[in-house]
Amino acid sequence: MARLDIKQDLKALNNAIAAENREKFASHNIYVINVMGSPGAGKTTFLENILPELSKHIQVVMIEGDLATRNDALRIEKTGVTALQINTNGGCHLDAKMIENQIQKLNLNSIDLIIIENVGNLVCPASFDLGEDMRMVIVSVAEGEDKPIKYPIAFLEANMVVITKTDLLPYLDVDINVMKKYIADINPEAAVFETTKKDGVYKADEVVEYILEQVRKKKGK
Amino acid sequence: MARLDIKQDLKALNNAIAAENREKFASHNIYVINVMGSPGAGKTTFLENILPELSKHIQVVMIEGDLATRNDALRIEKTGVTALQINTNGGCHLDAKMIENQIQKLNLNSIDLIIIENVGNLVCPASFDLGEDMRMVIVSVAEGEDKPIKYPIAFLEANMVVITKTDLLPYLDVDINVMKKYIADINPEAAVFETTKKDGVYKADEVVEYILEQVRKKKGK
Repeated sequence: MARLDIKQDLKALNNAIAAENREKFASHNIYVINVMGSPGAGKTTFLENILPELSKHIQVVMIEGDLATRNDALRIEKTGVTALQINTNGGCHLDAKMIENQIQKLNLNSIDLIIIENVGNLVCPASFDLGEDMRMVIVSVAEGEDKPIKYPIAFLEANMVVITKTDLLPYLDVDINVMKKYIADINPEAAVFETTKKDGVYKADEVVEYILEQVRKKKGK
Repeated sequence: MARLDIKQDLKALNNAIAAENREKFASHNIYVINVMGSPGAGKTTFLENILPELSKHIQVVMIEGDLATRNDALRIEKTGVTALQINTNGGCHLDAKMIENQIQKLNLNSIDLIIIENVGNLVCPASFDLGEDMRMVIVSVAEGEDKPIKYPIAFLEANMVVITKTDLLPYLDVDINVMKKYIADINPEAAVFETTKKDGVYKADEVVEYILEQVRKKKGK
């Protein structure tokens, strides 16, 4: 019982800071996306490809969460987008306090969208609110069609699911329609998209459009 | 500080139970492998393929750890191997107490090898000793060559690393030699193997041989 109480106290503390973050974002009209997925789901590659497109229309900043290394922030910065790196030193997820610390470094008046790439982990990040408007789960077809039912919590809380690496489907024993059915069974509200690399070009136009629409909706409020 | 102390207390408690498990396994001459890796790394497929081979020579039992579903235990049981399922109900890793609870159900006198498939997660399981003899990390080439340096703790503690899905290499921007170099940089002691499906047949003969050798070494002591 003691263990449960501690967990609940930590969660309540996190939720309180997340609420403060959310208020701060709202007062500056900033839309925030919390991106989660397994190691190797293709999160950073996806972001590398959509950021230049998003940046044509709105001002974007990235926050990168990793156990170790600055690799992902360096990859993102090559797209011309500012990327702040959080190293959790073994911690399995980001928390609201880590985000609060990072946003103090930013001039929030000039930002439309903050994208947070969580630690590669399909379990723990789902339990920690960061103050985001949207939760996005990235899952690659190479992970297998059953992942939504095996890791339901992440999918249950997702507003958007992006299925990546669909160009690998001919070489896998994976039925993407079964994967989509599992996602819909868990969370019929989630907007589901597919991305792929075709003829060397990364295809994510629909996702970019959808994100821009969400950002504009918040601005319009 | 309070948070750190709690973490250390829980870890000390886990280590104490893990030590008891280890003693119990040793007194029955049972070799134990703790298998970890990301969701979709190919852990269960790998096990489905090596278990029939291992079972020709020794008595094997599986313990399956998952957030939800009995899917993996059902898949394993089709190979003819007994599989006990642990559902962590959201918990991101197995702990020594969960293993202690399971081994009470087994007749330890008739078992040579217990393989524990941990929750799909490249972060949390690495911090929890279960009483195993060997830690095996499964990583698929589809996850990307940089995963060892981005999730170093799991690789640092591994005795054996199995790189799966190498048949996908022609369709990925991944250099398996770079992945192997990263593994060797972090942990030069780890035995590294590759597995693949070729002409519809799963190739893991070397891994099977290596595991049988480790089991026999323990028996010979």
